[in-house]
Amino acid sequence: MSEIDALKSEIRAFADARDWEIFHTPKNLSMAVSGEAGELVSEFQWLTPEESMKERLSAEKLKDIKMEIADVALYLFRLADVLDVDLAEVMREKMKINETRF
Amino acid sequence: MSEIDALKSEIRAFADARDWEIFHTPKNLSMAVSGEAGELVSEFQWLTPEESMKERLSAEKLKDIKMEIADVALYLFRLADVLDVDLAEVMREKMKINETRF
Amino acid sequence: MSEIDALKSEIRAFADARDWEIFHTPKNLSMAVSGEAGELVSEFQWLTPEESMKERLSAEKLKDIKMEIADVALYLFRLADVLDVDLAEVMREKMKINETRF
Amino acid sequence: MSEIDALKSEIRAFADARDWEIFHTPKNLSMAVSGEAGELVSEFQWLTPEESMKERLSAEKLKDIKMEIADVALYLFRLADVLDVDLAEVMREKMKINETRF
Repeated sequence: MSEIDALKSEIRAFADARDWEIFHTPKNLSMAVSGEAGELVSEFQWLTPEESMKERLSAEKLKDIKMEIADVALYLFRLADVLDVDLAEVMREKMKINETRF
Repeated sequence: MSEIDALKSEIRAFADARDWEIFHTPKNLSMAVSGEAGELVSEFQWLTPEESMKERLSAEKLKDIKMEIADVALYLFRLADVLDVDLAEVMREKMKINETRF
Repeated sequence: MSEIDALKSEIRAFADARDWEIFHTPKNLSMAVSGEAGELVSEFQWLTPEESMKERLSAEKLKDIKMEIADVALYLFRLADVLDVDLAEVMREKMKINETRF
Repeated sequence: MSEIDALKSEIRAFADARDWEIFHTPKNLSMAVSGEAGELVSEFQWLTPEESMKERLSAEKLKDIKMEIADVALYLFRLADVLDVDLAEVMREKMKINETRF
């Protein structure tokens, strides 16, 4: 099993164990992705671009950011799972499209 | 190399080839994640939860959604890369935290 | 009628004329606010903070930004309207809370 | 002074009193709008469209939602202020554009 598929199946097990209907609805999952992305952007909103670089972030701040990245990723992987989306495939497809655009 | 690391390095090569400073700043990348998450949520905003299920989506709509998922993922993986974040690790760490919470 | 109430009622008339169920559901309206906020943040994502200042923006860029600000405002006012929220009142209430916080 | 201008000037006074540079940069303000919109959408993510209607919300939930609406509005009005955007004008302009579109 690929690394991404392994993660998807761990998240699925987590959702199933809690019988979370909410974890199965693409509409709700898209809201969760967006909500967590909002928390992620909040972490950076008062930093200058320079201050946002890894070497300038405090250990504590970096930890907070990591947790927000994880939250976005968890819901995004779950959304990909419920929609049967092969994440690696669509990412590579989109990069190919971008290559011709930029 | 893990699947996620492979994807990160492909995105990095894409950014480096275009000498995109913007692709290297966590602040800007967090904005890109948030912007793409906004486009993703827009795809679902006028659907009922039921209409958002995979079997109810048209092929065209599903394709649009896939491209938005890919966009969020590309910027999120890039952000993880510039901050040296092990995505699989933080996702598993966050799931463990959530297990005790829920 | 206050200026904000006048705007709310114009947006309501717009929605009613089109019999838009979607325009009446707080859940969907919150998604629309979030989606439009994503487009707004996208306008600024590759600018430095300095480049984002009014005097540095091109007329065309400023026009695009204005339209995105309008979109967020339209859905936000509509959401306030369907939830019977007095926007001016809650803004002043929140400022008071913030005053004690900061 | 119009109601919206009065609110803008109160927010400006709040920012000036704290000498918040961050409150003056459109890039940062767009991130704050997006971050708060993320918190707003989070309030609704696990509700069905029906449960999100005013009459179904608990007093406590409605209060939380009001505070999130206020946060989005505060940053949006501040952004309009620093960019010299007449909010009522652009909202009406955008509605006119939408009228021809829908």
